[in-house]
Amino acid sequence: MAVYTEVTDEALAAFLNLYDIGGMVAFRGIAEGVENSNYALKTTTGDYILTLYEKRVNTDELPWFLGLMEHLAAHGLNCPLPVRGRDGGNLKPLAGRVAAITTFLPGVWPRRVLVEHCEPLGAALAKLHLAGAGFAPTRANALGPLGWAPLLEKSLPRADEVMVGLGGELRAALQAILAAWPQGLPVGHIHADLFPDNVFFLDGKLSGLIDFYFAATDIYAYDVAVCLNAWCFERDFSFNVTKSQALLRGYLSHRDLNAAERAALPVLAQGAAMRFVLTRLYDWLNTPAGALVTPKDPMDYVRRLRFHLQAKSEAAYGL
Amino acid sequence: MAVYTEVTDEALAAFLNLYDIGGMVAFRGIAEGVENSNYALKTTTGDYILTLYEKRVNTDELPWFLGLMEHLAAHGLNCPLPVRGRDGGNLKPLAGRVAAITTFLPGVWPRRVLVEHCEPLGAALAKLHLAGAGFAPTRANALGPLGWAPLLEKSLPRADEVMVGLGGELRAALQAILAAWPQGLPVGHIHADLFPDNVFFLDGKLSGLIDFYFAATDIYAYDVAVCLNAWCFERDFSFNVTKSQALLRGYLSHRDLNAAERAALPVLAQGAAMRFVLTRLYDWLNTPAGALVTPKDPMDYVRRLRFHLQAKSEAAYGL
Repeated sequence: MAVYTEVTDEALAAFLNLYDIGGMVAFRGIAEGVENSNYALKTTTGDYILTLYEKRVNTDELPWFLGLMEHLAAHGLNCPLPVRGRDGGNLKPLAGRVAAITTFLPGVWPRRVLVEHCEPLGAALAKLHLAGAGFAPTRANALGPLGWAPLLEKSLPRADEVMVGLGGELRAALQAILAAWPQGLPVGHIHADLFPDNVFFLDGKLSGLIDFYFAATDIYAYDVAVCLNAWCFERDFSFNVTKSQALLRGYLSHRDLNAAERAALPVLAQGAAMRFVLTRLYDWLNTPAGALVTPKDPMDYVRRLRFHLQAKSEAAYGL
Repeated sequence: MAVYTEVTDEALAAFLNLYDIGGMVAFRGIAEGVENSNYALKTTTGDYILTLYEKRVNTDELPWFLGLMEHLAAHGLNCPLPVRGRDGGNLKPLAGRVAAITTFLPGVWPRRVLVEHCEPLGAALAKLHLAGAGFAPTRANALGPLGWAPLLEKSLPRADEVMVGLGGELRAALQAILAAWPQGLPVGHIHADLFPDNVFFLDGKLSGLIDFYFAATDIYAYDVAVCLNAWCFERDFSFNVTKSQALLRGYLSHRDLNAAERAALPVLAQGAAMRFVLTRLYDWLNTPAGALVTPKDPMDYVRRLRFHLQAKSEAAYGL
């Protein structure tokens, strides 16, 4: 739940004057999103989202994220389109932050993932990968495999506060994952954080994808592995292969996975689980009491990681 | 910032089916409001607010609050109108709570109160008092003077954790306030919590009032005193008499204050400050670390209380 930066009405009115999207009608903070402050903005021309980028976001990278979103939207993906101001720019200062306005996407994210959600989710992920192909600038994945060992180092001294033995378990797993990390798989722009709260559905159909602020240029099949983690486990951390089959069927209906990509699914899924273990573990150990955002339990992803570590082949995912 | 209760998409779809307001378009948690969970709900017929009443609200009292809102809206006040379902009822179960849908009010609440806001605010308060006059059911003010001593008792043992001497200061002040509390002043339905975040403005005009869940039947002029506290102090806790004059001018333009009401303004303002000191002090001492809502500093209202305690007459407020 996140509104970190308050915007005065005067500042907002002056900001809105930089755009050609009509007069103010309403402005309410949204209790979703973790990294940035998001407001629902209604003007006389319709609904928009106003995002203020908070300190954890490197503002130098914002043009890349917004450029990717613009490219994806222009290539048929349902995602927020950054709105350009009268001066042609889509990033402007507001309340001591950098801010952007994007179009509003209809839909509701699934609070409880059903099998029916997984095939359209897989299809949308493949479409995202295909739509992004023509976007030339690249962005290294700061939370990709090169980032994991340094991130683990930061939490290692206190990891056993979460569970006795966790530090050792993660160090051994990470070593194995990095040793087996695949080379030469197809690479492109990936979402890298396509969790259920970033995917909207309307009338039983997927209506759009949001939140591209972890997007990067990395292995396509790794993005599939992130989704296997985020969409295919039940609340008791059991793996639902019916969901993963639906997800993969949806993906394969728009983009094929070659033999090497398929064979790499277990280690990619291990890596994806590790990435969320590591950021959650760091936040768990470093979020001050009373912070606006409650940190998520890293153990949820340790349990997923253990599942993927015992997966022998892509057959574990129903392929 | 408040979304305490998550609603599954299936439960939401079933809930929406009980109403005749079209199909779902979007559903986002709102990061405003403290007591309840609020969602912005967009359907094919327009924008609405869906409120889930949380545990601090006595659900037996909800029909009174919604009845008052319906009455006020029918009598020309711009406030959310509770939407009735196909069965004629305006309260229904959802996600283990009682929930209601109300109409959406355009506007933005003033993050920084300016003198220009105060006259329309005063006028709207008087209109609320007049519009509510024909609503027969009454509700005792649980946070009125009879509630203050018991509330202070709960915090007294730990009050000095906030400031050394605070317990004694509050006990002496409360005794004086209750001894001087006025009798026989005009009574009716009051908002009792008309802070800036409950008042929307649009294009320089007041566009509506929200959040009637502290409304009660009590002294009209006490509601004025709540607003003097909430709208007329600067960030350094100095009292801005230009603002209070504007507020009172607005009020008097629609409803007169008789001599007794005017003379009682200092003690009513003391009582209003005391009411917010006491609830904030209780929350300050009893909110667990890591709670979703950060408690507000009770000292902000102790400072206001001290101002009102030295006010000799209504002249202190510019009357």
